[in-house]
Amino acid sequence: MNYKMMGSFFGKILLVEVVFMIPAMLISLFLEEWAALKGFTISMIATFLIGLLLLLLTKGYNKVFYAKEGLACVGLSWIFMSMMGCLPFVISGAIPNYVDALFEMVSGFTTTGASILSEVESLPKGILYWRSFSHWLGGMGVLVFLLAIASKTDRSGFSMHLLRAESPGPNVGKLVPKMKQTAGLLYRMYILLTVLNVVFLLIGGMPLFDAVCTAFGTAGTGGFGIKNDSMVSYSPYIQNVCTVFMLLFGVNFTCYYLLIIGRVRDVLKDEELKLYIALVLGSIAAITWNVRGYYETLSETIRHAAFQVSTIVTTTGFSSTDFDLWPSFSKAILLFLMVVGACAGSTGGGFKCGRVLLVIKSLKRSVRQTVHPQKVQVVRVNGQMVDEKVLQNTNAYVAAYFLIIIFSFIFVSLDGFSVTTNFSAVLACFNNIGPGFEAVGPMANYGAYSMFSKVILILDMLAGRLEIFPILILFSRTTWRHS
Amino acid sequence: MNYKMMGSFFGKILLVEVVFMIPAMLISLFLEEWAALKGFTISMIATFLIGLLLLLLTKGYNKVFYAKEGLACVGLSWIFMSMMGCLPFVISGAIPNYVDALFEMVSGFTTTGASILSEVESLPKGILYWRSFSHWLGGMGVLVFLLAIASKTDRSGFSMHLLRAESPGPNVGKLVPKMKQTAGLLYRMYILLTVLNVVFLLIGGMPLFDAVCTAFGTAGTGGFGIKNDSMVSYSPYIQNVCTVFMLLFGVNFTCYYLLIIGRVRDVLKDEELKLYIALVLGSIAAITWNVRGYYETLSETIRHAAFQVSTIVTTTGFSSTDFDLWPSFSKAILLFLMVVGACAGSTGGGFKCGRVLLVIKSLKRSVRQTVHPQKVQVVRVNGQMVDEKVLQNTNAYVAAYFLIIIFSFIFVSLDGFSVTTNFSAVLACFNNIGPGFEAVGPMANYGAYSMFSKVILILDMLAGRLEIFPILILFSRTTWRHS
Repeated sequence: MNYKMMGSFFGKILLVEVVFMIPAMLISLFLEEWAALKGFTISMIATFLIGLLLLLLTKGYNKVFYAKEGLACVGLSWIFMSMMGCLPFVISGAIPNYVDALFEMVSGFTTTGASILSEVESLPKGILYWRSFSHWLGGMGVLVFLLAIASKTDRSGFSMHLLRAESPGPNVGKLVPKMKQTAGLLYRMYILLTVLNVVFLLIGGMPLFDAVCTAFGTAGTGGFGIKNDSMVSYSPYIQNVCTVFMLLFGVNFTCYYLLIIGRVRDVLKDEELKLYIALVLGSIAAITWNVRGYYETLSETIRHAAFQVSTIVTTTGFSSTDFDLWPSFSKAILLFLMVVGACAGSTGGGFKCGRVLLVIKSLKRSVRQTVHPQKVQVVRVNGQMVDEKVLQNTNAYVAAYFLIIIFSFIFVSLDGFSVTTNFSAVLACFNNIGPGFEAVGPMANYGAYSMFSKVILILDMLAGRLEIFPILILFSRTTWRHS
Repeated sequence: MNYKMMGSFFGKILLVEVVFMIPAMLISLFLEEWAALKGFTISMIATFLIGLLLLLLTKGYNKVFYAKEGLACVGLSWIFMSMMGCLPFVISGAIPNYVDALFEMVSGFTTTGASILSEVESLPKGILYWRSFSHWLGGMGVLVFLLAIASKTDRSGFSMHLLRAESPGPNVGKLVPKMKQTAGLLYRMYILLTVLNVVFLLIGGMPLFDAVCTAFGTAGTGGFGIKNDSMVSYSPYIQNVCTVFMLLFGVNFTCYYLLIIGRVRDVLKDEELKLYIALVLGSIAAITWNVRGYYETLSETIRHAAFQVSTIVTTTGFSSTDFDLWPSFSKAILLFLMVVGACAGSTGGGFKCGRVLLVIKSLKRSVRQTVHPQKVQVVRVNGQMVDEKVLQNTNAYVAAYFLIIIFSFIFVSLDGFSVTTNFSAVLACFNNIGPGFEAVGPMANYGAYSMFSKVILILDMLAGRLEIFPILILFSRTTWRHS
C-alpha cells in the first residue's frame, strides 16, 4: 500500500471538508446560534489542522499506485470525512454521544436519512443545514466533486478509479472522454436540478431555508427533514413537488446528458429507465388499490401512494404519511422497492434497477442454456452485448449484498427488537433509505438501538452507498498484505 | 418436446405410485378405517387407470430427447404424483378441500412438513402413514428410486439427467460409474439409516407405528408428525435421538459412501461437512446463551437449542418447544439457518452448505480480483479447482433463489398477515422446512392462508425441493417452443 499517497489524499479531502462547513458556520453566526457556532469553529480548526498535518507529512509521495489504493482511498475517505464531520454535532451539544453523532453524519453523507433524533425542530439552523447539506454532497459524491474542481489533468488514471468506485451503479462510464469534464458535467446538471427544485418549493410558499434544506435532501435522495413529522404537514402541492423531484433524481444522469445533446431516442429506448418507470407506476397502482379506504379521496390516496413509492424506490426516505400503518401487501411492495432502489448513475441507492435488469437477464440466459445446452447465449442490454466480466461482477455483488443483509440482521437482532424492525432497519440503512417499519418506522427513529448495532448499521450505510466493494476490501487481508 | 416419451414416463411413475400406496391401504384395511380404505382404493384404481392409459397411448415412442425433456419430466412428474397422491386425503374426508389436500401432499413429497391441519391425532392411521411415507419417498427422490430398481441399463443418458435434476445439491456426481448402481447404493444407505433410526426410537419406548412414521419424517428431513404438538411431549431421550438422526440425514450421502469404502480421511477433510458442523455447533452455542433462563436446567436448554437448530438446518421442521417464543437473536439465527439448509447430496433442503461455500469462495475471489486485477484467480473446494460453469450456475441459482423469495413474499402478503409471518412462511416452504414464525409458527399451521397463497407456496415447495430449475423451466417459453 502506498500509504503516503493515501495520506496526502485524505489531507486534501479534509481541507475541502473545511470549506464545505463554511456555509453552515455562517448561518449559525448570523442567527447567533452560539453553541452551534462554537461547534463548527472548533471542528473546522481541528479538521484543517489534521488535513494540513497529513499533507505536510506525506510530501513528495510516490505516484505509483494500484487499484486497491484507489478503492481503499474511497472507503477510508468517507469514513474520515464522517468522523470529522460529526464533530459539530458533538461539540454544539446537539448530539452529545459521539457514536450517535457519527451515525447521524454517516447517515447524512451516505444519503440514508436514518436519524437517531426524535426532535429536530429545536436544533440550531446551522446544524440542520449541515445535516441536509451532507445529503447533497454525498448524493453525487464528494470525490466526484473533487475531480470536477481539480486543476490538473489526471495522468495516472487514479481519478477513473475513484469515480468508478464512488458513483452509484454497475456501469458508470465516462460521458465525455476526460474524467474531469464528466465530473463537471454531472455536477452542473445536479446543481441545475437542485435549483429548479428549490424554485418549485418556493412557489408553493415554503420559506427559503426550508426549501433549500428540503431540496438538498431530495437531490441527494437523502431524507433528512427539518420537521419532526418529515413531510406530513406540508401542503399537497409541496408533497407532489417532492414526489416528482425524488423520481427525477432517481434517474440515471446519463439520460439527462443524452437529452441535453439531443439523443432523445436513446433515452426512450433505455431499458433501465423503462423498468424504473414500470416499477414506479405498477407499485403506485397496486398500493392505491390496497390502501383504498385509508384516505378520504382517491386523489389523496394516489398522492400518498406516489409519494411513498417514490421516496422508497429512490431511497430518499421522506414520508407524507405513516406507512407503517398500511396493510401487509403495501408493506411488502415497499420492502421490495427498498431492495430494488433507483437507477444506476443516479443519486439514489439500493440494488439499482440496472443491476436487477442484469440479474434477470442473466438468469433467463441460464434457463435458456439449461434448455438448450448446445447453444452459446449472450446477454444484451439496450441492444449491446454485456461483457461476461460485468455479469460476473454483478453476481458477486448479489452474493455480497445478501450476505451483508443476513449477517447484519443477525447482529442487530441481539438488541431484541422484533424481526420486522431489525430486518427493515438493515434494509433501510444498507440501501440508504432511512425509515423502516415498526420501531424504526417513518414516525420513529434509530435512537433505541445499542452502540454495537449502530456501528453495524454505520458500516451498512457506508457499504450501501459505496456499492460494497470499497468497504469490503477494507476487511480483506489481501488488501493490507505486501505484494 | 418429445411428448410421447414424457407421457410414457409419467405413466410409469403413476404405476409405481400405486405400489407405494399399498402399505397405507393395508394399514387402513387391518385397522378397519373404512373411510381411509375407500380413499386409498379409489385413488389407487384411478391412478392405475390413468397410468395405464398413458402407457398405452404413448407406445413406441421416439427415444431421441434433449435436456429440457429431462428437466420438464422431473418437474411435471412431481406435480402429477402429488395431484394423484392427495386423492386419498380428499376421498377419505380427512382433507375435503382439494387445494388443501394438494398442499399437504406436496408438503409431504417435498419433505417440507408444512401442514394445513391443526388436528392430526384423530386422523386414520393409514392416512398418517401415507403422510409420513411421502416424506421418506421425497427425501431421496422417487425418480432415484425408479433408477435403482430399473431393470434395463440406461443407454441414452436420460437417467443421468433425472438424477442430476432430482438429487439435492449443486455437485451430485456418480458414486460408481453406473447410474443404476449409484441410485441403488444411495437407497441402501438410506434404508439402513432409517432402520437404525426406528430401532433407536423403539429402545426409547416409542410404539412401532409412531417410530416408523417419525423415522420417515426424520429420514426425509420432512417434519410431519403424528402428534399435534410435534415432538414436545416425547421424552428427552427420544428428542435427542431425533436430533442426532436429523443431523445425520443432513450430511451428504457421499460421505457415508466414502466411510463405507474406508476413505475416512477424505470425509474428515470435506469442507462442506466442516462448515455444516461449525454452523450447527456455533448456532447451538449462540442460542443456548441467548435463551438462558427460558428453561430450568442447562441440559434442558442445550437439548432444546440442539433440537431446534438441527430441525431447522436440516429443514426437517419438527419442534420440541415453541421457538416462536424465543428472543429475536435466536429467531434471527433460525431464519439464517432456514436459508442455509443442509449439505448437498443429503435429504435436506434449503440453499445447501455446499452452495454457501461456493458463493463465499467466489465472493472472496472477486475481492482478490478487485485488489489485484492483473492476477488470474481460481476457486478451489476440497483442494480441487471448481469449474467456472459450476460457479456461473451457482450464481444463477442465487439470483433465482432470492427473486422467488421476494415475489412469493409479495404475493402471499395479499392475505394481510404480518411481515414476519409471510416472510417466514415463504422461507419455510421454499426451503422445505415447515414451520415459520407467528401465524405459521411451530404450534400453528398454514390453514389460514387463502387458496391463492397456498398455490404460491405449493410452487415454492416444489421449486425448493427440485432446486428451482426443473420448475422454473416449466414457466419459460423456450421450453415449449419448437426448436
